[in-house]
Amino acid sequence: MSNEILSRLADTLEDRKLADPQVSYVAKLYAKGLDAILKKVAEEAAETIMAAKDGERDKIVYETADLWFHSMVLLAQQGIRPEEVLDELARREGLSGIAEKASRAEMNGPAGKD
Amino acid sequence: MSNEILSRLADTLEDRKLADPQVSYVAKLYAKGLDAILKKVAEEAAETIMAAKDGERDKIVYETADLWFHSMVLLAQQGIRPEEVLDELARREGLSGIAEKASRAEMNGPAGKD
Amino acid sequence: MSNEILSRLADTLEDRKLADPQVSYVAKLYAKGLDAILKKVAEEAAETIMAAKDGERDKIVYETADLWFHSMVLLAQQGIRPEEVLDELARREGLSGIAEKASRAEMNGPAGKD
Amino acid sequence: MSNEILSRLADTLEDRKLADPQVSYVAKLYAKGLDAILKKVAEEAAETIMAAKDGERDKIVYETADLWFHSMVLLAQQGIRPEEVLDELARREGLSGIAEKASRAEMNGPAGKD
Repeated sequence: MSNEILSRLADTLEDRKLADPQVSYVAKLYAKGLDAILKKVAEEAAETIMAAKDGERDKIVYETADLWFHSMVLLAQQGIRPEEVLDELARREGLSGIAEKASRAEMNGPAGKD
Repeated sequence: MSNEILSRLADTLEDRKLADPQVSYVAKLYAKGLDAILKKVAEEAAETIMAAKDGERDKIVYETADLWFHSMVLLAQQGIRPEEVLDELARREGLSGIAEKASRAEMNGPAGKD
Repeated sequence: MSNEILSRLADTLEDRKLADPQVSYVAKLYAKGLDAILKKVAEEAAETIMAAKDGERDKIVYETADLWFHSMVLLAQQGIRPEEVLDELARREGLSGIAEKASRAEMNGPAGKD
Repeated sequence: MSNEILSRLADTLEDRKLADPQVSYVAKLYAKGLDAILKKVAEEAAETIMAAKDGERDKIVYETADLWFHSMVLLAQQGIRPEEVLDELARREGLSGIAEKASRAEMNGPAGKD
């Protein structure tokens, strides 16, 4: 299943903690540290936004993949599995979006699924 | 499996295209249009970065979920399934990262998995 | 001169530290704290990018003003005058851009003026 | 006056439209095109945010200078003078912030000065 790629990718990102920064792109990012990883997250978010403004379907897929990839690098660097993020998304699905939102002081994202 | 949540969430986001913007958070975002969705992507990327700088594990999980959620709203609005993004990530896994990167004029993200 | 607006605006932002958050937009931002201000900086950067992608001249001016305004709020909150930022820009003008850049491990912005 | 640096910098950025992209950092950015400039704006906004989270005064000044510099490159590329942005900030100073805001459907930035 294509869905399992996130778990498999997380395993690979974990392995890369032992890789040579001169050979592995991810090991190089780890070596540069947190700010370098966060800069990539910001950059890929911006590229996703620009691709969407261009209305180029393939580019949106490509840049979203880059955005998810680098947020997975952040998770790995922090010792967090993507399954925890997916579980958080599943948890929200069980909540009534509107009811949940009503209890939030400021709406800046849904805790419920919609 | 927790991994299937992305497909299930995509189905839900698709359903919300028919929902009442006054009742559904996502339908309201669709009604506001592309720029409103992109603004949320930027905002959640920034919140993920701030959570990581704070080193707060739970907040990183929460904000990454928000970031992935809103990039899924973007995909849905553009008629793109998350499986396409996952397939792109899987495709890269089959490539040798370093070999791939060597062929890119400017390295701004991996086409290969690392 | 229009250029003096930044100094005058900084004075106003300083005054707002004593204002009522229920009356003043800036006092409200101060009261919400650093993360709320930084979220606005991210949001206005995204809106500037979207305005530029739309190629709408007036919107670019408007959103850039919003971006500079909120980075001035950040400076004020941190006790930094905009003149310090302007002095840094002036300092770079005195440097040979290329020579300076050559000495940087990674080019992620100019220390010299171009 | 330090304030005049923005006008002087704008003149320099205009001159760089005729410079060699292999010699001038700004000419190279122009040659790469709009998306490359916007990517820098996003990157510098992220670095400003990270510097603020670190609470490092000098870094905040430095990164804000980078952010303003690259938004000036954007203005120059679009044929917009920074004085237009400063005039927009001055215009807002003449408005009552609260009164102005009350007339906006969604508050996402001040049209009035606070």
